Amino acid sequence: MAGFEVNEIVAALREAREEWRDAQKRSREPGSREFPSREALAAIVESLKGALFPMRLGPPELRHESEDFYVGHTLDSALQSLLIQARLELRYSARHQPRDAAEIDAEAQEAVRAFAAALPGIRRLLDGDVLAAYQGDPAARSVDEVLLCYPGILAMIHHRLAHRLYGLGLPLLARIVAELAHGQTGIDIHPGAQIDAGFFIDHGTGVVIGETTVIGKRVRLYQAVTLGAKRFPTDPDGKLQKGLPRHPMVEDDVVIYAGATILGRVRLGKGAVIGGNTWITEDVPAGANITQASLQKAGCD
Amino acid sequence: MAGFEVNEIVAALREAREEWRDAQKRSREPGSREFPSREALAAIVESLKGALFPMRLGPPELRHESEDFYVGHTLDSALQSLLIQARLELRYSARHQPRDAAEIDAEAQEAVRAFAAALPGIRRLLDGDVLAAYQGDPAARSVDEVLLCYPGILAMIHHRLAHRLYGLGLPLLARIVAELAHGQTGIDIHPGAQIDAGFFIDHGTGVVIGETTVIGKRVRLYQAVTLGAKRFPTDPDGKLQKGLPRHPMVEDDVVIYAGATILGRVRLGKGAVIGGNTWITEDVPAGANITQASLQKAGCD
Amino acid sequence: MAGFEVNEIVAALREAREEWRDAQKRSREPGSREFPSREALAAIVESLKGALFPMRLGPPELRHESEDFYVGHTLDSALQSLLIQARLELRYSARHQPRDAAEIDAEAQEAVRAFAAALPGIRRLLDGDVLAAYQGDPAARSVDEVLLCYPGILAMIHHRLAHRLYGLGLPLLARIVAELAHGQTGIDIHPGAQIDAGFFIDHGTGVVIGETTVIGKRVRLYQAVTLGAKRFPTDPDGKLQKGLPRHPMVEDDVVIYAGATILGRVRLGKGAVIGGNTWITEDVPAGANITQASLQKAGCD
Amino acid sequence: MAGFEVNEIVAALREAREEWRDAQKRSREPGSREFPSREALAAIVESLKGALFPMRLGPPELRHESEDFYVGHTLDSALQSLLIQARLELRYSARHQPRDAAEIDAEAQEAVRAFAAALPGIRRLLDGDVLAAYQGDPAARSVDEVLLCYPGILAMIHHRLAHRLYGLGLPLLARIVAELAHGQTGIDIHPGAQIDAGFFIDHGTGVVIGETTVIGKRVRLYQAVTLGAKRFPTDPDGKLQKGLPRHPMVEDDVVIYAGATILGRVRLGKGAVIGGNTWITEDVPAGANITQASLQKAGCD
Amino acid sequence: MAGFEVNEIVAALREAREEWRDAQKRSREPGSREFPSREALAAIVESLKGALFPMRLGPPELRHESEDFYVGHTLDSALQSLLIQARLELRYSARHQPRDAAEIDAEAQEAVRAFAAALPGIRRLLDGDVLAAYQGDPAARSVDEVLLCYPGILAMIHHRLAHRLYGLGLPLLARIVAELAHGQTGIDIHPGAQIDAGFFIDHGTGVVIGETTVIGKRVRLYQAVTLGAKRFPTDPDGKLQKGLPRHPMVEDDVVIYAGATILGRVRLGKGAVIGGNTWITEDVPAGANITQASLQKAGCD
Amino acid sequence: MAGFEVNEIVAALREAREEWRDAQKRSREPGSREFPSREALAAIVESLKGALFPMRLGPPELRHESEDFYVGHTLDSALQSLLIQARLELRYSARHQPRDAAEIDAEAQEAVRAFAAALPGIRRLLDGDVLAAYQGDPAARSVDEVLLCYPGILAMIHHRLAHRLYGLGLPLLARIVAELAHGQTGIDIHPGAQIDAGFFIDHGTGVVIGETTVIGKRVRLYQAVTLGAKRFPTDPDGKLQKGLPRHPMVEDDVVIYAGATILGRVRLGKGAVIGGNTWITEDVPAGANITQASLQKAGCD
Repeated sequence: MAGFEVNEIVAALREAREEWRDAQKRSREPGSREFPSREALAAIVESLKGALFPMRLGPPELRHESEDFYVGHTLDSALQSLLIQARLELRYSARHQPRDAAEIDAEAQEAVRAFAAALPGIRRLLDGDVLAAYQGDPAARSVDEVLLCYPGILAMIHHRLAHRLYGLGLPLLARIVAELAHGQTGIDIHPGAQIDAGFFIDHGTGVVIGETTVIGKRVRLYQAVTLGAKRFPTDPDGKLQKGLPRHPMVEDDVVIYAGATILGRVRLGKGAVIGGNTWITEDVPAGANITQASLQKAGCD
Repeated sequence: MAGFEVNEIVAALREAREEWRDAQKRSREPGSREFPSREALAAIVESLKGALFPMRLGPPELRHESEDFYVGHTLDSALQSLLIQARLELRYSARHQPRDAAEIDAEAQEAVRAFAAALPGIRRLLDGDVLAAYQGDPAARSVDEVLLCYPGILAMIHHRLAHRLYGLGLPLLARIVAELAHGQTGIDIHPGAQIDAGFFIDHGTGVVIGETTVIGKRVRLYQAVTLGAKRFPTDPDGKLQKGLPRHPMVEDDVVIYAGATILGRVRLGKGAVIGGNTWITEDVPAGANITQASLQKAGCD
Repeated sequence: MAGFEVNEIVAALREAREEWRDAQKRSREPGSREFPSREALAAIVESLKGALFPMRLGPPELRHESEDFYVGHTLDSALQSLLIQARLELRYSARHQPRDAAEIDAEAQEAVRAFAAALPGIRRLLDGDVLAAYQGDPAARSVDEVLLCYPGILAMIHHRLAHRLYGLGLPLLARIVAELAHGQTGIDIHPGAQIDAGFFIDHGTGVVIGETTVIGKRVRLYQAVTLGAKRFPTDPDGKLQKGLPRHPMVEDDVVIYAGATILGRVRLGKGAVIGGNTWITEDVPAGANITQASLQKAGCD
Repeated sequence: MAGFEVNEIVAALREAREEWRDAQKRSREPGSREFPSREALAAIVESLKGALFPMRLGPPELRHESEDFYVGHTLDSALQSLLIQARLELRYSARHQPRDAAEIDAEAQEAVRAFAAALPGIRRLLDGDVLAAYQGDPAARSVDEVLLCYPGILAMIHHRLAHRLYGLGLPLLARIVAELAHGQTGIDIHPGAQIDAGFFIDHGTGVVIGETTVIGKRVRLYQAVTLGAKRFPTDPDGKLQKGLPRHPMVEDDVVIYAGATILGRVRLGKGAVIGGNTWITEDVPAGANITQASLQKAGCD
Repeated sequence: MAGFEVNEIVAALREAREEWRDAQKRSREPGSREFPSREALAAIVESLKGALFPMRLGPPELRHESEDFYVGHTLDSALQSLLIQARLELRYSARHQPRDAAEIDAEAQEAVRAFAAALPGIRRLLDGDVLAAYQGDPAARSVDEVLLCYPGILAMIHHRLAHRLYGLGLPLLARIVAELAHGQTGIDIHPGAQIDAGFFIDHGTGVVIGETTVIGKRVRLYQAVTLGAKRFPTDPDGKLQKGLPRHPMVEDDVVIYAGATILGRVRLGKGAVIGGNTWITEDVPAGANITQASLQKAGCD
Repeated sequence: MAGFEVNEIVAALREAREEWRDAQKRSREPGSREFPSREALAAIVESLKGALFPMRLGPPELRHESEDFYVGHTLDSALQSLLIQARLELRYSARHQPRDAAEIDAEAQEAVRAFAAALPGIRRLLDGDVLAAYQGDPAARSVDEVLLCYPGILAMIHHRLAHRLYGLGLPLLARIVAELAHGQTGIDIHPGAQIDAGFFIDHGTGVVIGETTVIGKRVRLYQAVTLGAKRFPTDPDGKLQKGLPRHPMVEDDVVIYAGATILGRVRLGKGAVIGGNTWITEDVPAGANITQASLQKAGCD
């Protein structure tokens, strides 16, 4: 059997890597990779889910009497793994500006400590999301079914954890946590999005919620809803300006039906109902009921 | 290294759990979890897929001469696992009304027996779905490619199993089986939906088919089609009424192109063709050919 | 405990299989399965990802000094696994026309050799895709984040590998590689699609790109964009004609926003901007800016 | 490829099973296996080792501050697994005499409760064994090395757990725990053997300690020492009498060198030193120093 | 961090390999390994154990009603794996004398077929071994305990399988099967040894039974017994002569106590009892009772 | 179901741990475990075995052409894991004498570098051991069978690696490597033992070779041979003196048959043959032929 000329391909691949590294102005000094790990974060999120909902998402044989042992042990080891990942992110983001390793470590430690302290509040928010889903879906039979089966809940568990990491200066870890849910549910929520209590996404595939979105209480969304940016603001040199508010603000009690697209820093007023497949790029008053028909009527006039 | 105050967070998480359990009026007597397991059902479905299609979805080394040994062993152990899960669902759903354990067990046993007896019929239906996909997609090269690669077929294997479980009084198991496919394919078919022979979903991501949908023979769907409810009927007290017919009825030989949204208990007549991105909330006559353009013309008039 | 009548169900399932095999005119001679394996291809793609991007997608402990050892070993073993799968596909596709085994093996060997030789070029194309994503998304913080987190990049790694396999006469392997990405990202790119350099898909869930699509340089797509076929050409006997050009041609620098549907062998001219949720079935001139509003205006007139 | 006549061999194996079951007067009613599992007990012992020595045999990332969470969670789940195994043993041993299931379960519950209560005492005994090994072996560098590397210590961890199970009426579980250590160390200690504090076995391969052996404090043994039975007492019908004392009694501070064989209910007096490769079937006075030479001298006279 | 000069060590290791290959006159043409795999044989033996004793060594959930499905499926797949290994051995052993591949394959096929046909007889022999152990050990509580816990039984399961492979011209597979048991039990039985029905080894660690040993019915052995060769016969050139009878012949009903060493082609007559730690290099008459004392007396005279 | 009073047992276990830590004067400051890991070393040895014998102990699909890639990658990652373990040992052994972390790391780095440089020499020594086994055992069919099946070779691979670690100041890692082989083979060689080229242990179970043993070229040993210490030298205070020469010196070409026990700093002269089950505590002249009989004769006179 003739071979595959592996030697030559190895050499050609090395050349391609070097081109890229030169173009990216990467050093090629010896050293190992320093980047957070998707697998590690997947394991951490699994543990945190167990610590948040021990009798539902923890190990099957868990008993009420021993919940706290399980929660304490699982939490402790998840937080330590998270600390390692937090250090990797902070070191990575400091790769261009030499910083003191001890300072970075202290920052990572403090971020993980604050994250841990936020967990009970996150559990309460998630309880509210579960209730909202149960009350909003005629097919739901129990809150347990909602917690265990609904992709919208899975996405919100990930989001509420990711959003906290994002707020604590760990946007890369946050992003990985968000993408883990995106891959499993087709729901793409940027960790920067601010989402208040009692949020429910039904079906969910194709939902996109952008970085600077602000969502109020008791909001309900269906599949394929986009809360996106209209256009990207650029600075005078034509470079993208990062971080500016550019996504919608959705007030309390809004409902947005499947396939609606809301773009730009527009405001959907309290209690508005946005019909399916609509295309919204302007403010909607509180209590309004927008449909394709109403929009076309306006458009045709 | 300073710690994470794990003790305090464990206590705060316990408090959050107790609030929830009080609010949900949950007892806190000792006892273990009683809820069906997603992992167990994933393993059961894998086994059933092998038992249904031994030479394609069974183990790679299987030989024709030994198919029946494999099918018998795999089926037997899958059905026993399913029996355990069925008991868990029935006990869970009886948690508010004390019932005799032996009665529940007999019910579970009978449900699994009837499910097993339905498997040959399910195999025949799936053969028809595979043929429909092969004949309907110009890119398909063989029926084996369709069976092994098409997400629409994966979704239908799960659905035809889930629908049977749903019909046998195991809606939670059915739901988990459906969500397993939803997570892998982005196709969200409620296990209650009735789907007749020769059904084909192409591409599939974003398809949503609701609980009381009824679909005839030889129907074809593309990605992002919604067969949904228009609004949720409420009783005089404003509470959602569960289980009422509220999704479309799709007659034989209908084709629905990508992104179409059909809402409410409307009827799509035999052989109708529904164009992409259309929004339908009324009956469509047999043989009609609906497009965005035809709708807008009607709407603008 | 009463049993499940496994014997009877095994017999009934056998009968169902025999019906199918008779209908499909399958021989029932002894012999083992001969079909490529999804699991094997998943492992091969994982290895190739490591060989292409050793310091980012290879093992965490890898050091710059030893990259080539890792690349060489990983590549060699991935290519050998691929050779086995290539033989399986070629034997399967030759199942109706008896061919010489040695000839098939030589063909498989040659295809894998050519595939291997294409890898450095694929790495360079992917570097360009990563850069395009980084420059096109205001939320992106680094090229490494893009490579490791963006589902659009994952889909393109799979596509660029799958497209090469497709071009080398291994369409089934190509299809499996594509479906692996489809399942993880909701992005469905047919391996036949020709996509030039600097391509970027943002969010991505629900994107569908058909078999004969041709895409130029620096094109950008958002979620739920369809580049599909308008209708399937049939021959005089009404049978589908396979392989004819039937999907869009997208020229350099085109941007297509979320939910746009482009159907048929239409041409989107250089630099055109296609608005969200639009429905396009005709050519679009270079530099045009198409929106729902502009289309409706045209449609209402 | 011709097959293997699997059908015929399956039939012949069935026949062989039926012969055995008839000869053993086994019922052939439907029902499942009821026998404790080696794999389950291996996992239980691993957990108990971690609960006994959390910072040495527990998970590597464990911190002092969180030891109790780990110990509590691990213990709780190990005890529940043990309870299941205890029930299996008690049901199995009651297979010929119908007993009430609830009674058996209560007995299993009580045995596991008592076993759990014995664990702190077992930890103290094992600490003493570790110290004895450290002080008795000039090659030992630290107590941690002894705990982690010495097969004699591994054997004693298993034995002290197994002996407690044996005393609580679970001889089969005890036997499995003992055989797990035997397989790893070549040290075969019957769970019935009574071994007091500060016991040390060096090297260990080939050591055999019989069921009714009694060993005092601070005893030291080397490899290939046998403490066995001289002959098996039979009853008037020639059937073996089970359970009678038939193995040696070894008093405090005895040392027994490699390859010595001590058989029967003999007493080795306090502080006796038994030389290597000796063959002892009679009592040895306290403080005696027995060697091959001394024995042969006696024998030759 | 300085590196490890991996390049230089890789080069030096290559040089060492080349020296060896030159010394061994190995070709260095491209090609892959062709040697049976220890892991594959371990899996095959596990499967065969399940097929031989389905309700005890098969999967825990197995039911009487479905035994044959399990046995048939497990056997079929184990035999196919064995066929692959058998081919590897036969090709390896033919590496110096070019043989026809088809001929080798037919030989492998025939050997595996004959092996399969021998399994029911092996089951019956093992049933006899289990009974012998149960009757011979006062500590044994049930035949199931013997089957599941006794290392001597594990060794005999492996031996009776290995001996059949040895007899069918697959000495290398046989050797690997034997060494798997040796590693787990410390009992080293050469696969060539002929052992008749009702054989029992108690404790077992350190037992060695050589290639040309012949053992009759109802023989019992204790730990550390050696049935070995006295000296190796050499041909006139001083080279070892392989395969000549050089180990003991042990007649029916012999008992050999721990540590006895029997060397050379001697005969232990029917019913002889060989005491512990004895050293025998001459024939022992039927019914004799040999002890260290009796030997020394003879020796001193 | 009543619980197990886990809280109380957790408290009692904590108390037991604290007693021990107080007795051992252990600090109880927060901090994590710092002790080398048996699992890590098992993985390292597996990798090193592959790097030393790539075509026999490496991955099955390896090809001659790609050996060096495999060797380089495997070696690099094994050495990095080893470096981590080496640091753990050096930090642990420095726990009572505060040392500079950087100094310890440099020491670990240097030790691993020297270990790596020794590997080609170790490969050559092992080749010699394999040849010695092949030539010394009439049952051996090929050098490959010896390398893959003989427990004595497995023990020597571990020993030659462990001895090098021992010589480089890593006695704990060395010990773990040795115990891994002891557990699998029943052969217990202290890593300190000096063993020259062409060494062969047949069968092996029960062999013990002590720390200060010195063994010449072409020595052959059988099962259950002990090369041990006669008594442990103590200092004037009665404490064991560690590290003094106390085990036998075995010159070139000595053969020691099964069960022989050689104790103390005695010398077995070149070419001596030591019979089975002998007990030697004095020097043996070169060329002597010692048997039980010859010893007893001497003893009886």
